[in-house]
Amino acid sequence: MSLTEQLSGYYYDELSVGMSAVFGKTVTEADIMAFAGVSGDTNPVHLNAEYAAETVFKSRIAHGVLTASFISTVIGTKLPGPGCIYVSQNLRFKAPVMIGDTVMATVKITALVPEKRFVEMSTVCTVGDKVVLEGEATVMAPKRRSAQ
Amino acid sequence: MSLTEQLSGYYYDELSVGMSAVFGKTVTEADIMAFAGVSGDTNPVHLNAEYAAETVFKSRIAHGVLTASFISTVIGTKLPGPGCIYVSQNLRFKAPVMIGDTVMATVKITALVPEKRFVEMSTVCTVGDKVVLEGEATVMAPKRRSAQ
Amino acid sequence: MSLTEQLSGYYYDELSVGMSAVFGKTVTEADIMAFAGVSGDTNPVHLNAEYAAETVFKSRIAHGVLTASFISTVIGTKLPGPGCIYVSQNLRFKAPVMIGDTVMATVKITALVPEKRFVEMSTVCTVGDKVVLEGEATVMAPKRRSAQ
Amino acid sequence: MSLTEQLSGYYYDELSVGMSAVFGKTVTEADIMAFAGVSGDTNPVHLNAEYAAETVFKSRIAHGVLTASFISTVIGTKLPGPGCIYVSQNLRFKAPVMIGDTVMATVKITALVPEKRFVEMSTVCTVGDKVVLEGEATVMAPKRRSAQ
Repeated sequence: MSLTEQLSGYYYDELSVGMSAVFGKTVTEADIMAFAGVSGDTNPVHLNAEYAAETVFKSRIAHGVLTASFISTVIGTKLPGPGCIYVSQNLRFKAPVMIGDTVMATVKITALVPEKRFVEMSTVCTVGDKVVLEGEATVMAPKRRSAQ
Repeated sequence: MSLTEQLSGYYYDELSVGMSAVFGKTVTEADIMAFAGVSGDTNPVHLNAEYAAETVFKSRIAHGVLTASFISTVIGTKLPGPGCIYVSQNLRFKAPVMIGDTVMATVKITALVPEKRFVEMSTVCTVGDKVVLEGEATVMAPKRRSAQ
Repeated sequence: MSLTEQLSGYYYDELSVGMSAVFGKTVTEADIMAFAGVSGDTNPVHLNAEYAAETVFKSRIAHGVLTASFISTVIGTKLPGPGCIYVSQNLRFKAPVMIGDTVMATVKITALVPEKRFVEMSTVCTVGDKVVLEGEATVMAPKRRSAQ
Repeated sequence: MSLTEQLSGYYYDELSVGMSAVFGKTVTEADIMAFAGVSGDTNPVHLNAEYAAETVFKSRIAHGVLTASFISTVIGTKLPGPGCIYVSQNLRFKAPVMIGDTVMATVKITALVPEKRFVEMSTVCTVGDKVVLEGEATVMAPKRRSAQ
């Protein structure tokens, strides 16, 4: 069995509408700092507590794309997992994520497009009962190799 | 002048269709490692050179959302800059970003929606002449306070 | 279904001798730097290329415990996965890991101890065909809750 | 004097049974995040506060191998220090380490094996009075070069 096969996630023919997976992570100050360094996004609403206190959010908030990264984590490590190719992602930011919040990202297969091996998924991030980010993803799932 | 005003980016009434801004960053192995820690996305296509060599990409690629973060950087630090609120972002991943690539993110205002102070922008990331990510963003720009 | 159950790995009664799992990661300079920062292990054989060139290894090597961490990754994320408790780990360092090497960590269940829900595993790390680290782990696997 | 000699720790003939050394470090959220990125270990007991609250530990705990890395730090930087080669390490995890805990790692020479220049050590990590990790290490100490 090749390395690709050992580490591969789901193949297209193993997927069906309704399958879902989750990933959850607590957002910490360390995450905000590292994300600022990696992205270059130094918006004071993320890094400057005094500035943030004067905004509608009242305190520093996590980068929206940091929250979005948890969707990528579920897709790239769980469903469909390694081997899939990210085609597109729509993101609608519904509420801020604060330091200390635990974000749950849930993806669920809503449609399959066999001719392109496309998998369409709803993608939602929540903090407790509140939706903070919602959208849709399309990924291309790998084909099982004929000779295993 | 308040801290918010000192650090603020553009107010809604300062924006017009056609304005644009850019941000560029070289993606390094350190970025990939830190992004894996922040996001939890340990997909081997990002972290495992031998696995990646067997994929269609032939080598490790950056997380797609890491590339997308550069769009957020332009929006949150330059146009409109601090004070705006991220409403939505569509992302279409067109080509992989490799370690060592320098990504340029460009945003350009395509429409203004006065009743909501919404700013619609095209958002494109390139490596050299190649488009690696394209999409559209909507943000809400801040209103100038009457008494300055 | 509780959060614990949604994110849980294998329960004790789902495990059997012979089950195995792998994780692979390329060791980069960024990993060495971050590991030095987290651990405080600033041994020049890891950080000082000129010093390392004079040693038997001829170049900088990865921290042995960094290699060992990949065993923990397989155990904590795949087999048995979240919910298990790490009881003990023996490590025998057989060969150095260089920057750029891709380490594969493989764990395999060798025995089960029902009265303690202990899972005994062989744990081996390789670079290509070469064993760089071998040992044995004991973990305690979680019990399935009666009412799901 | 060569660079190796300038930076070297103890030579074998300078070591005796009973010698000991310590290293201490406070474990922070930033350490957990960076360790997750380096190791790939995204077990929710380390990263997800809500999941961790439902476990026997009641809150997020540090990766066990992160604690073990402090033993490597004492060995590789203090006793015997640079120049020694890590042969083996046994680890028995006795209690969890929480974010904010300060871990003290202590190593003590228990035996010397002249024909192999092996140094056997007890290795213990504590938080306050509580032992969190114990084990034994074997390292090979360097020989003093004849002409200095």
